[in-house]
Amino acid sequence: MSASERVTIREVGPRDGLQPEAVQPVTVRAGLVDRLVAAGVTTVEAVAFVSPRAVPQMEGAGEVLAAVERVEGVRYLALVPNAKGAELAVAAGVDGLSLTVSASAVYSQRNVRMSVEESLGQVAAVRRVVGAALPLDTVISCAFGSPYEGDIPVAEVAAIAGRATDAGSTSLTFADTTGMGGPRGVEELLAVVGVDVGLHLHDTRGTALVNAYAGLQAGVRRFDTAVGGIGGSPFAKGAGGNLATEDLVNLCDSLGLATGIDLAQLLDVSRGLADTLGHPMPSRLTAAGPSTAPTAPEKGRG
Amino acid sequence: MSASERVTIREVGPRDGLQPEAVQPVTVRAGLVDRLVAAGVTTVEAVAFVSPRAVPQMEGAGEVLAAVERVEGVRYLALVPNAKGAELAVAAGVDGLSLTVSASAVYSQRNVRMSVEESLGQVAAVRRVVGAALPLDTVISCAFGSPYEGDIPVAEVAAIAGRATDAGSTSLTFADTTGMGGPRGVEELLAVVGVDVGLHLHDTRGTALVNAYAGLQAGVRRFDTAVGGIGGSPFAKGAGGNLATEDLVNLCDSLGLATGIDLAQLLDVSRGLADTLGHPMPSRLTAAGPSTAPTAPEKGRG
Repeated sequence: MSASERVTIREVGPRDGLQPEAVQPVTVRAGLVDRLVAAGVTTVEAVAFVSPRAVPQMEGAGEVLAAVERVEGVRYLALVPNAKGAELAVAAGVDGLSLTVSASAVYSQRNVRMSVEESLGQVAAVRRVVGAALPLDTVISCAFGSPYEGDIPVAEVAAIAGRATDAGSTSLTFADTTGMGGPRGVEELLAVVGVDVGLHLHDTRGTALVNAYAGLQAGVRRFDTAVGGIGGSPFAKGAGGNLATEDLVNLCDSLGLATGIDLAQLLDVSRGLADTLGHPMPSRLTAAGPSTAPTAPEKGRG
Repeated sequence: MSASERVTIREVGPRDGLQPEAVQPVTVRAGLVDRLVAAGVTTVEAVAFVSPRAVPQMEGAGEVLAAVERVEGVRYLALVPNAKGAELAVAAGVDGLSLTVSASAVYSQRNVRMSVEESLGQVAAVRRVVGAALPLDTVISCAFGSPYEGDIPVAEVAAIAGRATDAGSTSLTFADTTGMGGPRGVEELLAVVGVDVGLHLHDTRGTALVNAYAGLQAGVRRFDTAVGGIGGSPFAKGAGGNLATEDLVNLCDSLGLATGIDLAQLLDVSRGLADTLGHPMPSRLTAAGPSTAPTAPEKGRG
């Protein structure tokens, strides 16, 4: 790994992170986006244009984007499930879209009530309505294992990803949706799909950071993270949040990889979010503070 | 990393892990040791022979060792601070000792009220009273940074370790006592001290597993871990537990490295300990269960 290399973090806290939380007002959601940008985030998945019946936490996506103080050079993105969502997102002035296609047939049916084939059809449909210019990232969920099928062969995952590209995606992100992957699985997939991809890791089993490190070592320079490690349901059995933005920034800082994000400012955002949401953030770094700010250790520790 | 290699885990849950917990009865402590051994643990730091005034959680170390059902081939170890503790440990029939010497002068003074020089003197004193045969591991605390001095030069850490060997240690373990290290720091220290050492990692900042992975990649095959990730004070601001045994076993399993520990059985021990101690274990793996036991994911996750 060469120092001075740049790692691009797509902050998904306002979208993936807030999804399992209590519904937050538009001003809170827009304010979170603004504070993340102030801390140095330059790519942020700010909203999802999805059915408010299915995900009430994402209702008012257009209002959130209208309330955000746009900063030059920052990319404000939206997750969309289909062409209708894409049209709304374009109308709200997003800089790019993401869309999920699952590598797991069962997960796809249960999570979005579509076959993998139908999901790939949505990629093509979105591309048609948004025209050629807008960036469209396809997130391949369950890329490192499915809670239903278990391991999914790397060749299958890669084939679905290839079809997403054919359908009009401009980039790909591989997601460990339920935290089943390990460093070796990350290496094996990257050996097939290449390293010009994003990784979207969940910490369900405490492996998000080690999997990110395996990705960094292989040469991946794009990651999805959520401030505080929110997402999933950190306090419910079996669920787990996203890789915490601060955990990845801390790791990159220690490796001499630039993220453009100021760790101290980001930790302030994370602590503020804990107050807003009324529970501690899953990230241990947020609780402990950076190692550059010494705290007294306990007595008798080995 | 070649598969079929063996990783030795020194389970420190009954000692380092229980230290910050409510005082547990002898039967509970001995039972925990027995259950860990039943899950496949072959090296266990079962007790510490320290002042019960300073660490009431470790009172009755001899009784715990007497109550343990000794299994052939398992090494039952004790932490001792000095020659007096070593004599008691030998009388209780331990298979080896560990002793802590800090790389941080300030931490040493505040934690054990001794200079580093005086701590090294304890290594020599312990060696004198126990004779030549008993294994004695010296744990170099704050080896990856001190909350008081910040980074400690690798050469200084290595010099203290060298003196511990000269004083009679048969092995060395390097501890990230307050969770300040990163993978690069691990690599840098190992490049100087070699990989025939142990690593003792704390998860104060969520970096224990990634640091262990860096150690594994460099060739380290000895780790201290605590079942559940207990230790420190998982629910107090700024403190953090040990690398969780289950997290390391899960990682080793995924890398094809043998630990001899059965993950499912270990998770049972961890869940039982949560009931005993009355709070959830810090290990997310224990909450989620192994990825080989699928659970239904939540709706709308990316």
